[in-house]
Amino acid sequence: MITIKDTVHDHIEIDGVAADLLDTPTVQRLRGVSQLGTVQLVYPSANHTRFEHSVGVYHLASRALEHLGIDGRNADRIEAAAILHDVGHGPFSHNLEALTHRRTGKYHDDVEELLASGSVGEVLRDHDLDPRRIADIVAGEAPYAGLVSGELDVDRMDYLVRDAYHTGVPYGTIDTERFVRELTFTDDDGSPRLVLDEGNVQTAESLLLARALMNPVVYTHHVARISKAMLRRGARRLLDETGFTAERLRRMDDADFLVALRTSEETAAIARRYDERDLYKRSVWAEYDDVPEAVHEADREEERELEREIAEEAGVAPGRVILDVPPEPSMRESTARVTVNGELRRLERQSPLVKALRTVQRNQWRLGVYTPAGDTERVGRAAAAVLGIEPDGLVSEVRGRMPTTLDEFE
Amino acid sequence: MITIKDTVHDHIEIDGVAADLLDTPTVQRLRGVSQLGTVQLVYPSANHTRFEHSVGVYHLASRALEHLGIDGRNADRIEAAAILHDVGHGPFSHNLEALTHRRTGKYHDDVEELLASGSVGEVLRDHDLDPRRIADIVAGEAPYAGLVSGELDVDRMDYLVRDAYHTGVPYGTIDTERFVRELTFTDDDGSPRLVLDEGNVQTAESLLLARALMNPVVYTHHVARISKAMLRRGARRLLDETGFTAERLRRMDDADFLVALRTSEETAAIARRYDERDLYKRSVWAEYDDVPEAVHEADREEERELEREIAEEAGVAPGRVILDVPPEPSMRESTARVTVNGELRRLERQSPLVKALRTVQRNQWRLGVYTPAGDTERVGRAAAAVLGIEPDGLVSEVRGRMPTTLDEFE
Amino acid sequence: MITIKDTVHDHIEIDGVAADLLDTPTVQRLRGVSQLGTVQLVYPSANHTRFEHSVGVYHLASRALEHLGIDGRNADRIEAAAILHDVGHGPFSHNLEALTHRRTGKYHDDVEELLASGSVGEVLRDHDLDPRRIADIVAGEAPYAGLVSGELDVDRMDYLVRDAYHTGVPYGTIDTERFVRELTFTDDDGSPRLVLDEGNVQTAESLLLARALMNPVVYTHHVARISKAMLRRGARRLLDETGFTAERLRRMDDADFLVALRTSEETAAIARRYDERDLYKRSVWAEYDDVPEAVHEADREEERELEREIAEEAGVAPGRVILDVPPEPSMRESTARVTVNGELRRLERQSPLVKALRTVQRNQWRLGVYTPAGDTERVGRAAAAVLGIEPDGLVSEVRGRMPTTLDEFE
Amino acid sequence: MITIKDTVHDHIEIDGVAADLLDTPTVQRLRGVSQLGTVQLVYPSANHTRFEHSVGVYHLASRALEHLGIDGRNADRIEAAAILHDVGHGPFSHNLEALTHRRTGKYHDDVEELLASGSVGEVLRDHDLDPRRIADIVAGEAPYAGLVSGELDVDRMDYLVRDAYHTGVPYGTIDTERFVRELTFTDDDGSPRLVLDEGNVQTAESLLLARALMNPVVYTHHVARISKAMLRRGARRLLDETGFTAERLRRMDDADFLVALRTSEETAAIARRYDERDLYKRSVWAEYDDVPEAVHEADREEERELEREIAEEAGVAPGRVILDVPPEPSMRESTARVTVNGELRRLERQSPLVKALRTVQRNQWRLGVYTPAGDTERVGRAAAAVLGIEPDGLVSEVRGRMPTTLDEFE
Repeated sequence: MITIKDTVHDHIEIDGVAADLLDTPTVQRLRGVSQLGTVQLVYPSANHTRFEHSVGVYHLASRALEHLGIDGRNADRIEAAAILHDVGHGPFSHNLEALTHRRTGKYHDDVEELLASGSVGEVLRDHDLDPRRIADIVAGEAPYAGLVSGELDVDRMDYLVRDAYHTGVPYGTIDTERFVRELTFTDDDGSPRLVLDEGNVQTAESLLLARALMNPVVYTHHVARISKAMLRRGARRLLDETGFTAERLRRMDDADFLVALRTSEETAAIARRYDERDLYKRSVWAEYDDVPEAVHEADREEERELEREIAEEAGVAPGRVILDVPPEPSMRESTARVTVNGELRRLERQSPLVKALRTVQRNQWRLGVYTPAGDTERVGRAAAAVLGIEPDGLVSEVRGRMPTTLDEFE
Repeated sequence: MITIKDTVHDHIEIDGVAADLLDTPTVQRLRGVSQLGTVQLVYPSANHTRFEHSVGVYHLASRALEHLGIDGRNADRIEAAAILHDVGHGPFSHNLEALTHRRTGKYHDDVEELLASGSVGEVLRDHDLDPRRIADIVAGEAPYAGLVSGELDVDRMDYLVRDAYHTGVPYGTIDTERFVRELTFTDDDGSPRLVLDEGNVQTAESLLLARALMNPVVYTHHVARISKAMLRRGARRLLDETGFTAERLRRMDDADFLVALRTSEETAAIARRYDERDLYKRSVWAEYDDVPEAVHEADREEERELEREIAEEAGVAPGRVILDVPPEPSMRESTARVTVNGELRRLERQSPLVKALRTVQRNQWRLGVYTPAGDTERVGRAAAAVLGIEPDGLVSEVRGRMPTTLDEFE
Repeated sequence: MITIKDTVHDHIEIDGVAADLLDTPTVQRLRGVSQLGTVQLVYPSANHTRFEHSVGVYHLASRALEHLGIDGRNADRIEAAAILHDVGHGPFSHNLEALTHRRTGKYHDDVEELLASGSVGEVLRDHDLDPRRIADIVAGEAPYAGLVSGELDVDRMDYLVRDAYHTGVPYGTIDTERFVRELTFTDDDGSPRLVLDEGNVQTAESLLLARALMNPVVYTHHVARISKAMLRRGARRLLDETGFTAERLRRMDDADFLVALRTSEETAAIARRYDERDLYKRSVWAEYDDVPEAVHEADREEERELEREIAEEAGVAPGRVILDVPPEPSMRESTARVTVNGELRRLERQSPLVKALRTVQRNQWRLGVYTPAGDTERVGRAAAAVLGIEPDGLVSEVRGRMPTTLDEFE
Repeated sequence: MITIKDTVHDHIEIDGVAADLLDTPTVQRLRGVSQLGTVQLVYPSANHTRFEHSVGVYHLASRALEHLGIDGRNADRIEAAAILHDVGHGPFSHNLEALTHRRTGKYHDDVEELLASGSVGEVLRDHDLDPRRIADIVAGEAPYAGLVSGELDVDRMDYLVRDAYHTGVPYGTIDTERFVRELTFTDDDGSPRLVLDEGNVQTAESLLLARALMNPVVYTHHVARISKAMLRRGARRLLDETGFTAERLRRMDDADFLVALRTSEETAAIARRYDERDLYKRSVWAEYDDVPEAVHEADREEERELEREIAEEAGVAPGRVILDVPPEPSMRESTARVTVNGELRRLERQSPLVKALRTVQRNQWRLGVYTPAGDTERVGRAAAAVLGIEPDGLVSEVRGRMPTTLDEFE
């Protein structure tokens, strides 16, 4: 048995297949992948990694399984999936996901390959577990998978509390112990489904509210978004202009990636800006409804084309404009089920707060156009013209509307 | 200068008029008045007092004044009001408020009298401060009073964080330091008004969400409500059936009151139940819309009359039925103002979450009828008949709908 | 099963005999007995009670039993003892112990009587447990008793962490989870003895250091000692000058005792001073070696006689002088055993820190003479003469030597 | 003004020269240098960096200056030194210090050069500050330097609390706020000296005890020491066997260094072991007194020679043996001065605990010889022979004496 002292869950005991997996290079690699990526530029203490998060997810899964009375191979599978659920992440995690996994088939296939090969594959086979089934759980596509990857999974329970602890922000606090006690499985239609037991509408709400409060101050803070967009630009250049492949990129850790940026001629300038926190600034910061539908619907290629047009219109070099269009607002947790009067109900139907959170999410959505400090005004006007955004969508006008906390360094 | 080590705000320095006030018997008495009253029966650690809360409110007021650049006599007034804002509280604070202050004129008058007399009056006069103006601030009826007693006051900032700390519940966490930095005064219409600066819609929301999450699990937990109703019944008997006056009652501390209950023949049975946590149980727990309008609108006398009728209908002694009708849902904070694009807006208009909280509050509202364990079914049926509530409003039916956390001891 | 949300250990689950005991009036009474007594006058937040502490001790005992692999009746006995270990405490716990239990035989006998009678006795008999054996465990006089009452017991593990949490002092922090994992029983000489497993000298040291750091700033802070001495004076008067018996006194809770002080003519003045924090001051504060042996060895009667002599010498009323001679320094934990190279060793022999703590304890020892503010100098001189202490043992001279933290209100 | 949300000190405000310095590449680089280096392999959450620590040190220095009443240029100098005090650190901080700064003159000269050049030099000159004087403060060789670099400096106050927070270990907790309030300067002999005010022997003790408790479980945990020794071996090879210079090495951050290890043929094997946590094991773990004087006094060259002899004796490749001889125990803090009865005294003289800590430190000292898992026994015997250590100094014998916490993964 392995014991790990964790900042969030104190002593965590790991045994069985999870303990064996922990020692594999594939899992150890997660020590080098930061949990929150560029959020570190906003909250200097936010240096926690996917490794400690994976251990935390394992811990919560294991506690929940105990309360659910699930053991044996079913438990082994879920615990293995918990410890492995993030091994597919490339450097800077979600920050570069679109690039680390582009043109390479589904993320799921990649994870499956990872789980089947090397020492992870060996460990799984030693414990008589089928890598494909573990990959299905990671992807949320198997019985009981909801515990690790669903609307109310232990993944988000861990990251909310952990991100709050390591940023110092007071909003991510949820009662994880209550969650693991109140989860239950129903089996209405033949496939077991994870739901919250009677009397837990508020427990579920607290999870969504925690996320809603964390979103603007942590996850989508504009400084984190700008730096992320810059790193993404760098990663794209590595793929497009140097010999890098997506396959290689996604097996790197943060250190590999940063050094690759620093040492490739095509990306050294971006690396320098990132390292010295000499970031681009916002020249447009536009609300959802101010953005024309065509822009909302643009695909990656069209976005790149729009960037080029803005640069041309502004008379600046094409590399100096970044267009950052977040995905459409969505809220997976709202489809979670809670038991109310012995009946399963969608959380969203039951909770006026959850309904309101949809509106909040849309209100918090922002399109950004970023550019070096001196060019913001020029690029802003050009972007407004090219994208068809009213001038008052420019950042100088809307600054006040922005839900930020720390604007330090800017 | 006095330094106090506080669990919530660490070292608190107190000087000037506040330091002198701290030493008066009137303020020291608050050491004996618990902050959360009967919530202690749900969360055993919740034994913090109005004294430490008052020191915390002073601290936050003082920090905010520093950021607002207010000093001199205006600051003295607010700091005095902060340290004094709860001296009018009787034993068990809000739990018995309706009784400690009944038939005795306005709470405000009582506070004013307290502030003008004795050593508090002396200290205020020594510092050349008018007790009446301090009482006005406590009552929220003076310029700048909003800092101590308004929609976004330091009172609730302190109690939310403090109540979370001393119950162990993870929901009351707000960023108090951000609040005291972001408060500002506007002076549109001649009277200064406290508002939140640009970019703080979310800061304000976090305060209301914290309260909304604390409400069902702490402030209105059914065990706390039942015990409170029992203590209130005891207090009423002291007033009605023994020689006690409201004037005397409201100057007691918790110890005085508990011992009075224990030693008066009329209330010894209630005291025993309270001391031994042998509490009444819910026989009705009805939602807002299931309660007929006439019951919602009943005054205290009519409620007593309904209790008697229920007891008669159920064939139990009249003292064994308690009807507990909470006040109509309301949410003072929703009228708070935030600055949005340089313009003052009501928080409620700006925030979909705050709008949703109105609905939540109504959903969480419950009418209760309590009675000793053996009688719940009988009394429940009688109460349903007398009050005109459908049988499925009885507790046996609705248990699942109730937002509870800890049902221990029941 | 009962679940309690605790500030220190989060969710605590209680079942079996402990759950039944929790509901008895004898245990519920501990809600009214503060854990730290007069320390509340130094740290306003230190209002936690013997009740929550007892639940915490149960929790740690239960965790340790799990790790030790002890279950069945042995575990039941220890868990019952854990939840009951403080039921013998009178109001203000240790503050008044010498008085609540004087002339009434051994504390142990009193506890045994408590455990055999009333609902506690019933519960124990229902679970087929012998009250006498539980009392033996509470007294540390039974196999396995060391877990609840020994040199390294869960009692002190809980109170150190809890007292740190509720005072806000950062010193009581120990790794309770590590302790419960590293405890083991040896059985060298036929009777099982609790020791720490290999590699835990430092674990044991951390417990003693935590106590050594807490002592001067919390447990023996001079303001807490002065107030305690005043309450003791009050209790003695209740016993000597009114009809109170020690039997009655020791079944009171804090509220009963405070109200008794307030309402008895003989003690109303002390009660007023306590309530208004208008405390006596130190007129002597003498180090161990400056105090003549005769004074160290004086018994209670002789101490009272010395008080009278000092008062006479100073020309003040006899009631206005309090002599406070703490017990001889001792350190029970230093006899704890740790396993070193497979061999049991006394902690004190193994650890230079523990040896040093003996000296620290002696250095921190202070004899106090207290008197109302105006008389300190006069009484100080008289006390020095009567007790045979050199004049530089007077407080005015030694103030700097005193290890204090918060001198607020003085 | 810049505001940073910190996990340890909450909101930190930075302005003046410190704010300008924060934006320089030299300070931003510290984001990439971990605070605790290889301790991350023991405590997975210990990923905090020299950057956030530097901000914390600035914060405490700034608070102390406020209490000391020091402002103007003296304050500017100290605040600049606080924010800059770690810029000389190479990758993995102290772990590689001996190598990053070997053959390159004094650390002090290097820091002075760093402070005089580039944007840091510019900022300092803009604020009319002499880089040399700042470097003197960093080196502890200037009036008032003791606040940043002395026996009781804010550097160790910050790192103790921060390391505790980010490892989850409960021992580093000290009352930083009390420290910054109780520091004072004396000027007995013409040069101002930082001391603790009256009544703070215990405050000083708490700092040393915190360190003593942190040492074995965090700073000198054997897994951290082994990994550090492996990284050091790698760094030495980079310097000796590839084109790397110490100058280049010490300007790298952790990422640069790790990637250099991974990509150099000579060090790839070490990098792989480090990345996969496939570490060497202890084959000798010997106490201070069991190690012959000649070994204690060996210089770096002689240590390398001993390593070679051990390898030869054991019949393993020379690269597979690491000899790790920690520096002689010393305790700089023990020379700190505290005010006792108006007189300055050395802490060590005043405190029996501090005296005992010298012994503790010596007791905790261990010489290690590390080698891959399969060779421990063989290498252990060879090392015992070569170094002249009695066989019971071998790890198999002494395991129990070792003060460890978490032996996970081994």
